[in-house]
Amino acid sequence: MGSRTFDFASAPSYGTPMDVAREFTTAPPLAVSQWFNSNTDISLADLAGQVVAIEAFQMLCPGCVSNGLPQAQRINSTFGRDVTVLGLHTVFEHHDAMTPISLEAFLYEYRIGFPVGVDAHDQPGGTPITMARYQLRGTPSLILIDRSGRIRLNAFGHVDDLAVGASLARLIDEQPVAV
Amino acid sequence: MGSRTFDFASAPSYGTPMDVAREFTTAPPLAVSQWFNSNTDISLADLAGQVVAIEAFQMLCPGCVSNGLPQAQRINSTFGRDVTVLGLHTVFEHHDAMTPISLEAFLYEYRIGFPVGVDAHDQPGGTPITMARYQLRGTPSLILIDRSGRIRLNAFGHVDDLAVGASLARLIDEQPVAV
Amino acid sequence: MGSRTFDFASAPSYGTPMDVAREFTTAPPLAVSQWFNSNTDISLADLAGQVVAIEAFQMLCPGCVSNGLPQAQRINSTFGRDVTVLGLHTVFEHHDAMTPISLEAFLYEYRIGFPVGVDAHDQPGGTPITMARYQLRGTPSLILIDRSGRIRLNAFGHVDDLAVGASLARLIDEQPVAV
Amino acid sequence: MGSRTFDFASAPSYGTPMDVAREFTTAPPLAVSQWFNSNTDISLADLAGQVVAIEAFQMLCPGCVSNGLPQAQRINSTFGRDVTVLGLHTVFEHHDAMTPISLEAFLYEYRIGFPVGVDAHDQPGGTPITMARYQLRGTPSLILIDRSGRIRLNAFGHVDDLAVGASLARLIDEQPVAV
Repeated sequence: MGSRTFDFASAPSYGTPMDVAREFTTAPPLAVSQWFNSNTDISLADLAGQVVAIEAFQMLCPGCVSNGLPQAQRINSTFGRDVTVLGLHTVFEHHDAMTPISLEAFLYEYRIGFPVGVDAHDQPGGTPITMARYQLRGTPSLILIDRSGRIRLNAFGHVDDLAVGASLARLIDEQPVAV
Repeated sequence: MGSRTFDFASAPSYGTPMDVAREFTTAPPLAVSQWFNSNTDISLADLAGQVVAIEAFQMLCPGCVSNGLPQAQRINSTFGRDVTVLGLHTVFEHHDAMTPISLEAFLYEYRIGFPVGVDAHDQPGGTPITMARYQLRGTPSLILIDRSGRIRLNAFGHVDDLAVGASLARLIDEQPVAV
Repeated sequence: MGSRTFDFASAPSYGTPMDVAREFTTAPPLAVSQWFNSNTDISLADLAGQVVAIEAFQMLCPGCVSNGLPQAQRINSTFGRDVTVLGLHTVFEHHDAMTPISLEAFLYEYRIGFPVGVDAHDQPGGTPITMARYQLRGTPSLILIDRSGRIRLNAFGHVDDLAVGASLARLIDEQPVAV
Repeated sequence: MGSRTFDFASAPSYGTPMDVAREFTTAPPLAVSQWFNSNTDISLADLAGQVVAIEAFQMLCPGCVSNGLPQAQRINSTFGRDVTVLGLHTVFEHHDAMTPISLEAFLYEYRIGFPVGVDAHDQPGGTPITMARYQLRGTPSLILIDRSGRIRLNAFGHVDDLAVGASLARLIDEQPVAV
């Protein structure tokens, strides 16, 4: 469950502007059974035009608690309204241990203030729907979505802040393109 | 729920041998509804003659996860069989969020190998029985019990490793006294 | 000598593209009496067209050792040839204690691989020349210079990696302008 | 110059009282050319009857700065007058870089308040006298001396605080023996 390696196959280079002509995958819709820290349901369609950072985590994953979630909190405080930070609770193991009731207390105790969605299951146990759609390899994973709704980073494990900051600046500065 | 100050009112001085003539409180019995990492129930009476370190924690307490439990793991690995390390899951808030099912997954993911007991409640909600008996002020709390079954340290919050190491060495070296 | 606050008065916003029409100060030339990790003298004029990050430090400044220099090393390894990282040893106190001979051993022991210049003094003691030209408030300070040779960040103390990464990405992506 | 492994060959067990009948080496005298943070010369003979912790370090050794010296400061603050903490600047490399003038500024900037002696050389360069007498393998090294003037720990590299705390408590509690 701990975080391990980081795959930058689909990641933008830090040193050169991201190639906007390159083909990127359109971000699949989120399948969320319940939202915390939000009075309304949130869909990526609602966020069209915004830069979105999704932190996929499990509340009992040590690497998420020590690295992934603190990074998401830093993104939130550093970039403010220029980046929409969402948490996604992608429970793929210990299902009975990480229920929404437990998650709610976790979010309270760890002072997670951004919206967090519970990744939905189409059947009990196993991989949740959104996690499968995004082909996440584990938790924590950081997903960056551009203003045109395309996945620009899908990274499992540790990504250093300099690299994340560089990627976000470029996504913020891009204009939406027709897709 | 975070850890805060540390009360050394009842703590032994580090610089001078502990006064064995001083009056110490006999450790009250544990009230545990379920044990993890142990095939059998554990009572302090069974541990008579041993030095015992009890880490009282809640699985969703950030200070327990980042400080208290790692310290208990270090005590366990540094002192080996000379100190019996026990965890005590003293849930006094978010009761539905920190059930034994959630605790079991937590212990697995955080690689907690020593026995952990679930502090029993005599009624739903509120302060659990052992926590009340020991008058703990919150989590994490570290309790040290000598070979004669007496409380020698009952510390809420952070206690530094040098101080804990000093206290444990003295307790290890003491002979049991008739109490 | 420790680092303290951070002045973002002249810093680019993270959330919006930097305003290229804004007036920026042209970076004054470096006054360096000796270079380490470089076979030749380095001048900003030689680096025209490049993005330059200058870490101003003193080898006996704890905040430089624990924060400033490790950040400069991370910038160097993350951005590679897209950012030219330079160190500047701006000795303004304890002059006899931080001589070039001591600096050379320091750079070796701390594995600082990028070029480091010794900020020159026009008279013994006091503030060195480059430090005065850039009006640095202390060490560590991080200075970012754009491809057109203009100061875009001049920050005393701690700057977080997300913010630095964002600023560098934008500077990398800019075209030089006539100044 | 970094710290590496730790040899517990001569270290007391943590779990059992130290065997006072065991043969221990009498600590050789210190050969110090200059003291900082002390108005007078300090000799081990003067400290007879006291527990002494000597932190051998070099000011440009990263492991000393990040681990060894902070541990010595913690020992000093935790044990107060029950342990006499001394620093020993054992320069065996980069001799011209770590002169007493540089050391003085280092001690000031890093807030080292306990007495620090400069290990003397009988000839320029090479291993200093005290370092050779104690057969230190590098820096940082922690030496513990009992009330009877005998070496009880001589550890190169990292020693964890629990273990150091345990050893110190036992040395504090011992009575001096005739040697």
